[in-house]
Amino acid sequence: MSRPFDPTLYLVTDTALCAPRSVPEVVAAAVAGGVTAVQVRDKTASRRELLALTRAVQAVLAATPSVRLIVNDAVDVALLTGADGVHVGQDDLPAPEVRDLLGPNALIGVSVGSAAELDDVLALPAGTVDLVGLSPVWSTPTKPDTGAALGLEGTRALAARARAGGLTSVAIGGIHADTAAAVAATGVDGICVVSDVCAAADPAAAARTLRAALAGERVPA
Amino acid sequence: MSRPFDPTLYLVTDTALCAPRSVPEVVAAAVAGGVTAVQVRDKTASRRELLALTRAVQAVLAATPSVRLIVNDAVDVALLTGADGVHVGQDDLPAPEVRDLLGPNALIGVSVGSAAELDDVLALPAGTVDLVGLSPVWSTPTKPDTGAALGLEGTRALAARARAGGLTSVAIGGIHADTAAAVAATGVDGICVVSDVCAAADPAAAARTLRAALAGERVPA
Repeated sequence: MSRPFDPTLYLVTDTALCAPRSVPEVVAAAVAGGVTAVQVRDKTASRRELLALTRAVQAVLAATPSVRLIVNDAVDVALLTGADGVHVGQDDLPAPEVRDLLGPNALIGVSVGSAAELDDVLALPAGTVDLVGLSPVWSTPTKPDTGAALGLEGTRALAARARAGGLTSVAIGGIHADTAAAVAATGVDGICVVSDVCAAADPAAAARTLRAALAGERVPA
Repeated sequence: MSRPFDPTLYLVTDTALCAPRSVPEVVAAAVAGGVTAVQVRDKTASRRELLALTRAVQAVLAATPSVRLIVNDAVDVALLTGADGVHVGQDDLPAPEVRDLLGPNALIGVSVGSAAELDDVLALPAGTVDLVGLSPVWSTPTKPDTGAALGLEGTRALAARARAGGLTSVAIGGIHADTAAAVAATGVDGICVVSDVCAAADPAAAARTLRAALAGERVPA
């Protein structure tokens, strides 16, 4: 990746959890509160809807160029929007193919749920993958199709191996303000949140609370 | 589109209907029987599965370069495989965006179910869309999400307007050997079939029967 990427507090959007607010509205508030990267994810949207959604989020992020925009799965949407990158799961297009399509400057992330899946990523040529999403730390209702929970110990082990292999790592799955600091302490470069921000009554405040927790400050009650 | 495209008998694959045979196996037989173009469609496959499926069909078609390979919806898969084109529905990426991604030589088709949807295609700059799929001629269980059936009269009216606008047209939806000639007589450039070939005990024979019907020959009992 060519530009700096700050994975500290990485928001993955969930259209249903944001409702009745729009996703761009929630993203704007979340970024104001301290979210440092945004992944647009909507597995139920049509490709046309996802393109429109991504463009709308991109417009919100135009004011904060340090906050990178990543598209879940949809490489064609990333190409059309000029988003910063794509995040793929184990069923999506393989990372080398995504790299071929997006070129050397894109940010490419891969979901990893086990040591074996991390080995697969580490076996790829350097520069194929930038980031691994260690998933799930804990099981979560927003993504029921994931494998067994890694827990803090499993996350720590994978984060260390990712770092040794030159990969940025983020952890995702069931992370909330009261557990964010413990997850960050495993050695990951950032944490991902979905419901803690998307479903929050005040997404900006939720993001601020998470940032404070990551900074080791007392989390407001 | 740069190379000739023969839409006479256009097969749209259905993985479930092909089972227990593989899609490439059925495609090979269908092409031997006279299918002139193949669209890989699998709305339930993951992107990774669709990539593998498209590559497998492409390998089958390597021996018959006149049979063009079109990918349903997945522009990224078309880019990765070098397929001849993409067919998009009303919920998929808009045709101008697909053209941007695939370039001037790709074959781009759009599903059209009404005069208004055809007007939208005809209003695009020349060269954006090559082909319209008039759909459905009759309602069909393989694609329950379509609009009202066009019937032969509706198909004839849309085919004439498509032709006047410089577009190739094919008809799809509920077409079988006993109705193929009547559909072809509406003025479309080709007919699409799904179940009549994919679900046939002998896909090669089914394709031969359809070609014979289109040629005005007596359909074998």
